[in-house]
Amino acid sequence: QTDTLKTTTENKPLPIKIDKKWYDNIGIRGYTQVRYNRLLETNENLGCEQCDRSWGKDGGFFLRRMRVILYGQISKQVYFYIQPDLASSASSERLHFAQLRDAYFDIGLDKDNEYRIRIGQSKIPYGFENMQSSQNRIPLDRNDALNSAVANERDLGVFFYWAPKKYRELFSELVKSGLKGSGDYGIVGFGAFNGQAANNPEANNDPHVVARVTYPFKVKNQIIEAGIQGYTGQYVLSKANLSTGVLNANEDLNYLDQRIAASFILYPKPFGFQTEYNIGKGPEFNPTTSTIENSSLEGGYAQIMYKLDFKEQTLIPFTRYQYYDGGKKHERDARSYKVNDLEIGLEWQPLKNFELVANYTISKRRYEDFLKPVNLQEGNLLRLQAQLNF
Amino acid sequence: QTDTLKTTTENKPLPIKIDKKWYDNIGIRGYTQVRYNRLLETNENLGCEQCDRSWGKDGGFFLRRMRVILYGQISKQVYFYIQPDLASSASSERLHFAQLRDAYFDIGLDKDNEYRIRIGQSKIPYGFENMQSSQNRIPLDRNDALNSAVANERDLGVFFYWAPKKYRELFSELVKSGLKGSGDYGIVGFGAFNGQAANNPEANNDPHVVARVTYPFKVKNQIIEAGIQGYTGQYVLSKANLSTGVLNANEDLNYLDQRIAASFILYPKPFGFQTEYNIGKGPEFNPTTSTIENSSLEGGYAQIMYKLDFKEQTLIPFTRYQYYDGGKKHERDARSYKVNDLEIGLEWQPLKNFELVANYTISKRRYEDFLKPVNLQEGNLLRLQAQLNF
Amino acid sequence: QTDTLKTTTENKPLPIKIDKKWYDNIGIRGYTQVRYNRLLETNENLGCEQCDRSWGKDGGFFLRRMRVILYGQISKQVYFYIQPDLASSASSERLHFAQLRDAYFDIGLDKDNEYRIRIGQSKIPYGFENMQSSQNRIPLDRNDALNSAVANERDLGVFFYWAPKKYRELFSELVKSGLKGSGDYGIVGFGAFNGQAANNPEANNDPHVVARVTYPFKVKNQIIEAGIQGYTGQYVLSKANLSTGVLNANEDLNYLDQRIAASFILYPKPFGFQTEYNIGKGPEFNPTTSTIENSSLEGGYAQIMYKLDFKEQTLIPFTRYQYYDGGKKHERDARSYKVNDLEIGLEWQPLKNFELVANYTISKRRYEDFLKPVNLQEGNLLRLQAQLNF
Repeated sequence: QTDTLKTTTENKPLPIKIDKKWYDNIGIRGYTQVRYNRLLETNENLGCEQCDRSWGKDGGFFLRRMRVILYGQISKQVYFYIQPDLASSASSERLHFAQLRDAYFDIGLDKDNEYRIRIGQSKIPYGFENMQSSQNRIPLDRNDALNSAVANERDLGVFFYWAPKKYRELFSELVKSGLKGSGDYGIVGFGAFNGQAANNPEANNDPHVVARVTYPFKVKNQIIEAGIQGYTGQYVLSKANLSTGVLNANEDLNYLDQRIAASFILYPKPFGFQTEYNIGKGPEFNPTTSTIENSSLEGGYAQIMYKLDFKEQTLIPFTRYQYYDGGKKHERDARSYKVNDLEIGLEWQPLKNFELVANYTISKRRYEDFLKPVNLQEGNLLRLQAQLNF
Repeated sequence: QTDTLKTTTENKPLPIKIDKKWYDNIGIRGYTQVRYNRLLETNENLGCEQCDRSWGKDGGFFLRRMRVILYGQISKQVYFYIQPDLASSASSERLHFAQLRDAYFDIGLDKDNEYRIRIGQSKIPYGFENMQSSQNRIPLDRNDALNSAVANERDLGVFFYWAPKKYRELFSELVKSGLKGSGDYGIVGFGAFNGQAANNPEANNDPHVVARVTYPFKVKNQIIEAGIQGYTGQYVLSKANLSTGVLNANEDLNYLDQRIAASFILYPKPFGFQTEYNIGKGPEFNPTTSTIENSSLEGGYAQIMYKLDFKEQTLIPFTRYQYYDGGKKHERDARSYKVNDLEIGLEWQPLKNFELVANYTISKRRYEDFLKPVNLQEGNLLRLQAQLNF
Repeated sequence: QTDTLKTTTENKPLPIKIDKKWYDNIGIRGYTQVRYNRLLETNENLGCEQCDRSWGKDGGFFLRRMRVILYGQISKQVYFYIQPDLASSASSERLHFAQLRDAYFDIGLDKDNEYRIRIGQSKIPYGFENMQSSQNRIPLDRNDALNSAVANERDLGVFFYWAPKKYRELFSELVKSGLKGSGDYGIVGFGAFNGQAANNPEANNDPHVVARVTYPFKVKNQIIEAGIQGYTGQYVLSKANLSTGVLNANEDLNYLDQRIAASFILYPKPFGFQTEYNIGKGPEFNPTTSTIENSSLEGGYAQIMYKLDFKEQTLIPFTRYQYYDGGKKHERDARSYKVNDLEIGLEWQPLKNFELVANYTISKRRYEDFLKPVNLQEGNLLRLQAQLNF
């Protein structure tokens, strides 16, 4: 199993044979995000569970993500992708354990893998920002509106993706070129999955189903992508997440969980614009009756950014406004939310493998559960993040 | 630390020096198993804790194993093998954490490493199917009878293995050639280990001891392997696994735990036959008295399979019958079992790194503990597994 | 992305272009420690929580560390280091999960990275033995006196390190040559960190701060290093670690936590001497009043060792005496300690990647909390460790 480099004393081309080694088939890469959220803080009671747990009172330095990715096109039609996060909590007091995010493999149905079956735990094709890696996203956290659909964006199931070769190359190029693409989840994608979100066991007999169509295209020098997507299923509230005293509407804790979303992206060449919106239904805590009801939800965001390359550095100033009105099924008592946040920030890549983000957040968040049935928090804070890419 | 490739303008052989790099000493490989057990299900109350937790009611897509292996012969007499499973549970509701299966190193006592000391967490040499990797096993799960000896097949200890060079090569070939070998646990192996199974702390002052002899030999075109093995020790029931109300026979929860097993394998060239049987003693819940007693146990299995290679694909139809009557010390209240299962299935390798297994199971299982003192479940189900090898 | 090795039929030097691959930037290494502590044991009630949990009654084979390190100088000024331990506990009964130790990156501020900013979870620059890797340390465990400052030696924060190039090379050489150096934490280092120790969330609004100066220098054939260091902050006791019944002095569980230490090392060429001592203040359980008070603490150790190289083996006999009088803030009720331990041992490296340590410990330890308010244990034991380096 060693490279063989043979030569002769005659003037002939060297016959060279290099066996494929494991490291030619399998690659390792990853990224790390370290944060500090306490500068210019005006309200220490303002929190954002979906963002990170180090906002406000008693927060400090925080390791938001520590990802290591093992991946490879190990044969013509077989690709795999395994991504543990090494900053996961085994419980609220035991941090930084390794827990899976992705663990899937793609089986190509044709030579160019234009038709693929994806098996395992992977991102649910719902929303552009959800698909986009946190390594590439400009704001520090995903928007509440679409990200509340699937905690950690992932679930276990079987999916089908289709994209012609030239679109697969475009999806790939949109990431590599620094344009902050979503990666390749097909022009058309659909699938079935457990529906309880990544790393949770299925809790009923019915899988969720999802479908998505997205279409990137070039207009002169610009690249535009537009997409629609939707999913439906029965979500089962976790008993461990229910406060004693909640009066449950549904005896078996099953709630209708369905959403539809539209996405529009103008990639930053150099000016970019991005917006998504979704509407749907899901469980939501009702503070006046102390029950959890099936309620309507809606929300989205709009973001503008400008990509400035100079020397070997990149600067991306951006601003994002987001809105969400609805429940969050993954949180305590399907917590009721109303969010109005404005963010103004800057991503700076001073060195090849290193990024800094400063994000000034003007936030107004109502989030209410049985323990805190009246809870409107307003405040501003400066958020900082250092990111390493390896 | 860079490769040096030197050349001259003269017609001399190239002097080439390639330093050993980390990736020449250390390799990475692994495999993933994704399952779905709900098709053709006739009894949603039929479960199999030792198989996987996604049988029956509320089951869905399931990640059974997600293994990454780091290994290498790092010097002439030193080999190491580290295998975390990334689909382990930190608790019943927190899935997909990384937890060790193997973490051992072999110190060779001679040039050819025919005599080896193994130190660390590794498989206990008890049973052929237990030694065989799940990556290679044809049925979806190990048989209850022998696998109930050691949960996860592993423990922490010190072992000695001996096999002459040509048998070491044979053990290796039996895996590489797709004949579903067990790997090399020596012709003769013995050792001492904690006895509480992998990833559990020792709970008394006495180690378990184990010994095994196995002998593979060729008869014309066929390869046959026959082995015997046994272990003995004191197993301590886990308090966390005891239902309140159980009347314990043993005050300190120590129970005699000893077994002896015989194995016979005719490797599939192309027709294969495999059988194992074990008898012994161990703790077992007695539903009539609500006590846990030291009881006799016995059971085994017989399996036939046929290996069909065509083009670059492989098909292996198989059937297995298994029987077990005894307690399972690792489960709640040392649960009492009586198992009669018939499986008919097919392993298909359509692509180099990808396998599919369909396993129709006709099952009759009595499994009783303090919470369910009368519990006989019968039913059929079709089990599906997609496996990736990388 | 493949190596290109081109040649011509003419007598010209080969034009060779080798692209940088992921494995040229990223390396993997690690080590494993397996222990057994029960030989020649005279008191089965003598334990040492900070050492390992397999001392005394019900102890057995024990996997103390299973480290895998991913690291690399990925660009001129960016270095990263990620080290999970695969033998971490998710709870007392669930062993061998992967949990981070280190996860940091260094950003060099100049060409030679003499000035570096370190971001992430890393060792707090307090104490020589704390900085020294367990892979290199001669005694089996760190001394109680300085190691009780920071559990697992690490925390999350931002640090600055400075060392001129030739000292960076010296720090590196002291490790590579087998002289058991500490690695490069600068001649001068300082930083801010959460203060609740690695893998614990911050629990108040104030970071800890630390500063350290260390200076290695050559005197004839000998190498000497001398250092001083100190830190201060408010430590918050963990509620989960408090016994019901403890009368707390401080309502918010915040306690002053500050220490200063001196270090002196004569590297073993071949005779070595090493000593460290620290004094400070921290929370400590008072058994007479059942309260936790801010108390003085002090202690240190002195160690002599002799490095004997012969053929390709190394033998290092050593002895260490250690003393500590004070509380341990990370343990139950800020347990009160008085430690007098003498160790006599031998490290033997019979093969390139393999080490054995035998450590005879004569121990006198008083350790008292609310559950055991009177607890003085004396005893001797022989401790064995097998270590693999890969």
